[in-house]
Amino acid sequence: MVGVGSQGKPPTVKEVARHAGVSPMTVSRTLAGGANVRPDLQERVLAAVHELGYRRNENARILRPGQASGLIGVAITNLGNPYYGNFALGVEEVAAETGRRIVLGNTGGDPARERQLVADFLGRQVEGLVLVPAGGPSDHLQPGRLGDVPLVLASRRIYGLDVDVVLLDDVGGAYRGTLALLDAGHTRIGYLGYVSSAFTGARRYEGYVRALEERGLHPDPALVFREQEDAAGGAIRRLLDLDEPPTAIFSANNRNSIDALREIGRRLRSGATPQEMPALVSFDDFELAELMPVPVTIVDHDPRQLGREAARLLLSRLGADARQRGPARMVEMPVRVAPAVPSA
Amino acid sequence: MVGVGSQGKPPTVKEVARHAGVSPMTVSRTLAGGANVRPDLQERVLAAVHELGYRRNENARILRPGQASGLIGVAITNLGNPYYGNFALGVEEVAAETGRRIVLGNTGGDPARERQLVADFLGRQVEGLVLVPAGGPSDHLQPGRLGDVPLVLASRRIYGLDVDVVLLDDVGGAYRGTLALLDAGHTRIGYLGYVSSAFTGARRYEGYVRALEERGLHPDPALVFREQEDAAGGAIRRLLDLDEPPTAIFSANNRNSIDALREIGRRLRSGATPQEMPALVSFDDFELAELMPVPVTIVDHDPRQLGREAARLLLSRLGADARQRGPARMVEMPVRVAPAVPSA
Repeated sequence: MVGVGSQGKPPTVKEVARHAGVSPMTVSRTLAGGANVRPDLQERVLAAVHELGYRRNENARILRPGQASGLIGVAITNLGNPYYGNFALGVEEVAAETGRRIVLGNTGGDPARERQLVADFLGRQVEGLVLVPAGGPSDHLQPGRLGDVPLVLASRRIYGLDVDVVLLDDVGGAYRGTLALLDAGHTRIGYLGYVSSAFTGARRYEGYVRALEERGLHPDPALVFREQEDAAGGAIRRLLDLDEPPTAIFSANNRNSIDALREIGRRLRSGATPQEMPALVSFDDFELAELMPVPVTIVDHDPRQLGREAARLLLSRLGADARQRGPARMVEMPVRVAPAVPSA
Repeated sequence: MVGVGSQGKPPTVKEVARHAGVSPMTVSRTLAGGANVRPDLQERVLAAVHELGYRRNENARILRPGQASGLIGVAITNLGNPYYGNFALGVEEVAAETGRRIVLGNTGGDPARERQLVADFLGRQVEGLVLVPAGGPSDHLQPGRLGDVPLVLASRRIYGLDVDVVLLDDVGGAYRGTLALLDAGHTRIGYLGYVSSAFTGARRYEGYVRALEERGLHPDPALVFREQEDAAGGAIRRLLDLDEPPTAIFSANNRNSIDALREIGRRLRSGATPQEMPALVSFDDFELAELMPVPVTIVDHDPRQLGREAARLLLSRLGADARQRGPARMVEMPVRVAPAVPSA
């Protein structure tokens, strides 16, 4: 339903402003997202918009220099994982500071779904894209395909794609976590990690190997399980069932850690003693880690900060001439290792 | 940058279609979100759009009957909580089945932020709104303010607002959880809940009271702590420090449960025995509940299903004449209570 103004023509911003008793600038700002407009004024504007049947001229607005949709497309791999929920929250917070909103899509780690989402976002005239890559081919992300829409990658890099990326200090975190186990006297340290083809998986394994080698040790193939998203499939059971099981485990992600702890819990309920169970260092925090039946040291990091940093990188590329503001940047976010590993 | 077509005028959909070697319908569908368009065709369309500098006429499109922005505004209270991350995922999945996307905002439970987000979403011409209410006044949600944009509430109802709502079976879940403790022989059952003014808090307390009264018992004011979002502030300590502490606790949400377990864990590490600690029933699941130092029974529910149902209710209100499709509906989603409470 399109309303009519005083002359039988569609109502203008000025008429909406007069009706609401505010300035035309307040009307424009409210319709552009409401940044810096008091909630009560926004409501008066929206009431007037409704009563007059005003529709913003989206076309004219988008074509005007410096104006845009005010939308950031965000595609993540698993919104149900609190890690990525907090990541999206960080992006949303920083976007909201500029009156922008996020359009959110979940890829489920499926490259085909990622391609569709990116195409969809471009069709919606997003101003920028933040993507946790699903891991497939990247031709749909090449600059020619995205036009002048900037892209920021988070958590994972894509080689050959020259865009801003924000990562965790994966190598350093895994190195320090493994070193903490070595310092506590462990030498047989198992590794639970996800598929080695994954960017993050490869980096964390690199940190594990680097710490071992610094102490004159080498990864023992019998103790390394690198090909599982989580440890429910049996990797942890095979580690614990070895004739000489590891006295400690470095787990490269929280899904592997949680499944390892589930199996350790089962064995303790079946009569194993905590002393027979390995110490654990987990990359990624999880709730109640301090209540676990064996000591767990966490390589901790803040997904919300990761999201905030991704949004900041993206916003710095928006606006006139921003594409020329220098080459692609890589930011590594710090991690913490705590609490200390008990002596072996 | 606006491109030009063969006649020096802006390019048309037909020209984009010819350039991409697809039908104009495929171009339109791709630009409308890509539902039912193969990813490779979408990419050809987007490449052609970029090369020709085509811009969709958003204004004309939105004014056309039956066409709309394809956006659903979703405002939730805490995206960092995995519960709401999964809720948003459920909404996103069902919206995506119709080629729609979600614009997501986080209120942090702040009513002023909710008002701003709703105003913002309306300014973006969302087709519908899904809202987990922050709990403030609701005048900004009245039909007059929303125009013809349908609204679905999730988790919490707002009295006096006649819209579709999807809830958990809060009363039934708390009733059955408390009954499980009574059946196991407990009669001194503490209550940890959040502010009683909250809709969900009031309903869960109602279920607790109903179970007690069915067995001829009444809530003991010394055992009931209803005014905290979580139990970090001392409610659990005051319960455990009573001369005659409860032998069991019903906790109305996972934040209270987790803080209770943290305190119980501290006391066990300080020499208390598990037998001295209360049994726990928790409304809301949390990860690794089965590894806790005392038995925990969960009143479990599926936030993703809650989100899916909210989106279904909303979609049924979209399209021509949908507003006339009957009165507001209330859907209660089922809960499960497991595992059994050990005998007292």
